[in-house]
Amino acid sequence: MQQTDGAVRTAGRPRSEKAEKAIIEAALDILGEGSGVSELSIEAIAARAGVGKTTIYRRWSNKEDLVVDALASLKPPIAPLKGVSVRDDLVAYLQVVQSESVHVRTRCIMNIAMSQSDKHPRVAERFHEIAIKPRQELLSAVLERGMANGELRADLDVPMAMAILSGTMMWRTKWADGPLPADLAERIVDEVLLGFRPR
Amino acid sequence: MQQTDGAVRTAGRPRSEKAEKAIIEAALDILGEGSGVSELSIEAIAARAGVGKTTIYRRWSNKEDLVVDALASLKPPIAPLKGVSVRDDLVAYLQVVQSESVHVRTRCIMNIAMSQSDKHPRVAERFHEIAIKPRQELLSAVLERGMANGELRADLDVPMAMAILSGTMMWRTKWADGPLPADLAERIVDEVLLGFRPR
Repeated sequence: MQQTDGAVRTAGRPRSEKAEKAIIEAALDILGEGSGVSELSIEAIAARAGVGKTTIYRRWSNKEDLVVDALASLKPPIAPLKGVSVRDDLVAYLQVVQSESVHVRTRCIMNIAMSQSDKHPRVAERFHEIAIKPRQELLSAVLERGMANGELRADLDVPMAMAILSGTMMWRTKWADGPLPADLAERIVDEVLLGFRPR
Repeated sequence: MQQTDGAVRTAGRPRSEKAEKAIIEAALDILGEGSGVSELSIEAIAARAGVGKTTIYRRWSNKEDLVVDALASLKPPIAPLKGVSVRDDLVAYLQVVQSESVHVRTRCIMNIAMSQSDKHPRVAERFHEIAIKPRQELLSAVLERGMANGELRADLDVPMAMAILSGTMMWRTKWADGPLPADLAERIVDEVLLGFRPR
């Protein structure tokens, strides 16, 4: 309620991308400081972003939707892959994942978000739909292309292969206690492809 | 301070395993409800466990050590593996990991603990030393045995192989939205061994 003045101040202002970005960043900041989704309040986000609550409610009708968009901003769509060699596409894909993981704040927020999927199933479900599923589709398309053109075994278990690639990168970034090797994505892909290629 | 009566009530009682277990469970319960390590208080743990603060301080001189022991209780030492086939030892190892992951509370607590390793490096470090390192040593010993006896490639990258095995299981349990296949450990090991075995 103490933000009413803020809301009045911004009333009538056109919905701006700048305000939206400030709101998303404010939500991420507060989550990154260890706040759970339950404790996160629209008031706190508004105060941090320097906007009124009305500005937030004009864009997001509830806190959960805002949290979903904030989390999804950390996993933006991956740019189209080259589509020439399967090996190079897999390396490029994992390089994006690795580059995102170097941000402690991102890892921290993702961990918090994941640890709350039981309490906030709608957030987890929407986040998966918006941010995770498109990446999974991209990755499975690369593997299926390789199975079709003979770069990979025709009997490859695609969901398992995806878990091996993504899980290995997650494991390496999760437990890293120093900078990760610059060629980590290449090393993972080359090791894993020994089992994925035709015999 | 409101627990002083409790402390008096239990003063003089011999350090009991039962009280220790109740304290550990109380700490895990509160962590599992979404409390961060910072917000966790000895008062709250004592109240939940039905013991006095003195009982806690008699065993743990600070909150961080108690949290480490509580987390480590979720990752107890793995019983000795059979030591016959490398494939079967790897399956047995991953079966333990899978069986632990079915407990939502455990996953939730581990996620919270992991998300706080930047804020509480001592907790993360001690937990790694007590609970994670012995498991890593067990796993690397199995792989090295396989490299020595010809079950695995002599040039296998052991840390990478460990990341592939553990990361794949973590990935599958993390994103599971239903019961995991009973033969998941076997399927992971058999898929991964295609790349680990001699050519």
